[in-house]
Amino acid sequence: MEDFEKKIKRKIDSKTKPIGALGLLEEWAFKIAKIQKTLTPELKKPTLLLFAADHGIEAEGVSCCPRAITWQQCLNMVKGGCGISVFCKQHHFSLSVIDVGVDYDFPNNSGIISEKIAYGSHNMLKQPAMTSDECKKAMKVGAKYVRKSFLEGCNVIGFGEMGIANTSPATLLLHYFTKRDLRDCVGVGAGVMPKGLDHKYHILKLVSELYHPSCPLEALQNFGGLEIAAITGAILEAKRLNMLILADGFIASSAFLVAKAIEPDLMDNVICCHLSAEGAHRFMLEALGQKPVLDIGLRLGEGTGVPIAYPVIESALIFLNNMATFDEAKVFDVQNNRQP
Amino acid sequence: MEDFEKKIKRKIDSKTKPIGALGLLEEWAFKIAKIQKTLTPELKKPTLLLFAADHGIEAEGVSCCPRAITWQQCLNMVKGGCGISVFCKQHHFSLSVIDVGVDYDFPNNSGIISEKIAYGSHNMLKQPAMTSDECKKAMKVGAKYVRKSFLEGCNVIGFGEMGIANTSPATLLLHYFTKRDLRDCVGVGAGVMPKGLDHKYHILKLVSELYHPSCPLEALQNFGGLEIAAITGAILEAKRLNMLILADGFIASSAFLVAKAIEPDLMDNVICCHLSAEGAHRFMLEALGQKPVLDIGLRLGEGTGVPIAYPVIESALIFLNNMATFDEAKVFDVQNNRQP
Repeated sequence: MEDFEKKIKRKIDSKTKPIGALGLLEEWAFKIAKIQKTLTPELKKPTLLLFAADHGIEAEGVSCCPRAITWQQCLNMVKGGCGISVFCKQHHFSLSVIDVGVDYDFPNNSGIISEKIAYGSHNMLKQPAMTSDECKKAMKVGAKYVRKSFLEGCNVIGFGEMGIANTSPATLLLHYFTKRDLRDCVGVGAGVMPKGLDHKYHILKLVSELYHPSCPLEALQNFGGLEIAAITGAILEAKRLNMLILADGFIASSAFLVAKAIEPDLMDNVICCHLSAEGAHRFMLEALGQKPVLDIGLRLGEGTGVPIAYPVIESALIFLNNMATFDEAKVFDVQNNRQP
Repeated sequence: MEDFEKKIKRKIDSKTKPIGALGLLEEWAFKIAKIQKTLTPELKKPTLLLFAADHGIEAEGVSCCPRAITWQQCLNMVKGGCGISVFCKQHHFSLSVIDVGVDYDFPNNSGIISEKIAYGSHNMLKQPAMTSDECKKAMKVGAKYVRKSFLEGCNVIGFGEMGIANTSPATLLLHYFTKRDLRDCVGVGAGVMPKGLDHKYHILKLVSELYHPSCPLEALQNFGGLEIAAITGAILEAKRLNMLILADGFIASSAFLVAKAIEPDLMDNVICCHLSAEGAHRFMLEALGQKPVLDIGLRLGEGTGVPIAYPVIESALIFLNNMATFDEAKVFDVQNNRQP
């Protein structure tokens, strides 16, 4: 362990509590102090960037929802009515909704940021989800808005998504990056689709056999979606800028799988906010090597796990910065056998 | 299901999200709305009552910590340096530290509320932990401060404890109320004691064979502690006053076991804030029939799980009160096949 890491550990263990008694809060405090290279880390201007896009594969009946819900929910988000809207407001997150591929022309004054690359991804059953150019463009959009947030003073950022049928690309990315049986990777997403779960599996099986990507970016381009590509670019930029990065559920985590394959040290900067009720999400957290902040059956997407978990992460810094040490409080330090 | 419960369910399901997608947040929203008999429930003046006491069984070497830490930490609490102090401050909890049996005379101006019944419980190896009179007095103190909080407008309350060696009484209460093998109920508490875990087991085994309580209150009197009795009285009063009651970890939960044996409908008013790293706590949650808000390896006691989990519980009301319905947001309601 390096000298500075020892200092963080010593600060944590000097607090008036049994060593380790704050569980994962201690791990998160350590992680954030290490990222920020200070014994008194702070989280500033928490930000949620939400990328929205439609999916060509939706035409194959893999979702219970029609694609119009993507644009309808985007409007609901900026008007303050969605889950992500109310939870961001609860914890003072700045929320931006960025259209990278929604199949709808929003009015100019909608409040939705337009970075539209296409009116949705392509149907993967017929061609790769994105062209190489579309995929790169989407990644650049993601990076651009992270940079913007960083320049405004934000040092903690999470990513949300909206896109009917996007559990399908996430499932394929999970399958590709972990080599886990596709059957184990498929779940019901927003709800059981009219043609049943077997139909979704069947379609995704066909897609998985069509492509044999040779690198993470090619996998993203073949199996991903414009919002997942944008999140991937956003994650990589946030890592370059050394921000604390908060991972949400099944869809967002699939972008973390891509980004981790590109940037092996990524997880040094990441806290996973929750374990989704979408069953295969646990395989993603395993692949990312992370324990979640929350395990309360969330499966709404939109990035909702990020603001809901945020105050628990804040508690890690609250204890690190504000609890008294044994010396300060004149409490007997049993572990080091020091009388006050 | 009664009409009002159907109304709550309908409100939850009218929100712009897949049915059930907010997991346990939906269950907690339902529970709190049902307690408060309103579709727009609110949590007011969150309060943490912390009861402190020493334990006669400490003399048998069942803890790694000397009993002086009880009073030292009580002073640290009111000065703002303990875990419970900083987390209560983080989430605007009113914190009261109430001495019901600490083996120390606090100065008058310490900030600690004096309701001292004795200078600790008796050594259970020699006599019941409390006399019947001491146990009743402690329960009355608990009830008194709940009533006081209620009259000040509080409708959500949690309980903390401070008392070196108090995992021992909690372990015995768990064993008594669940009939689970004592070996499975014993854990290391604040840390491995000098004489090892086997010694703690051996002492508690002897105690468990000494008494054969015929009712929950007798079990509390024989195996409990003054702070656990105070919490039990507090819980029962909070239930009578129909407050939302927040359960913390291993020690506090042992009082919930006693209270539930007395008041079978108790859990209608309770949310369990976390699953402790003290291994046997999971058996308590099983006995209480509850899933925890957090499972992040906390084992600090003091009631710390309550304020740390609180904002997550608040998120349940945030979604119930503030998310838009499908109608309001003009979003297609797939589940009811209603176009906007």
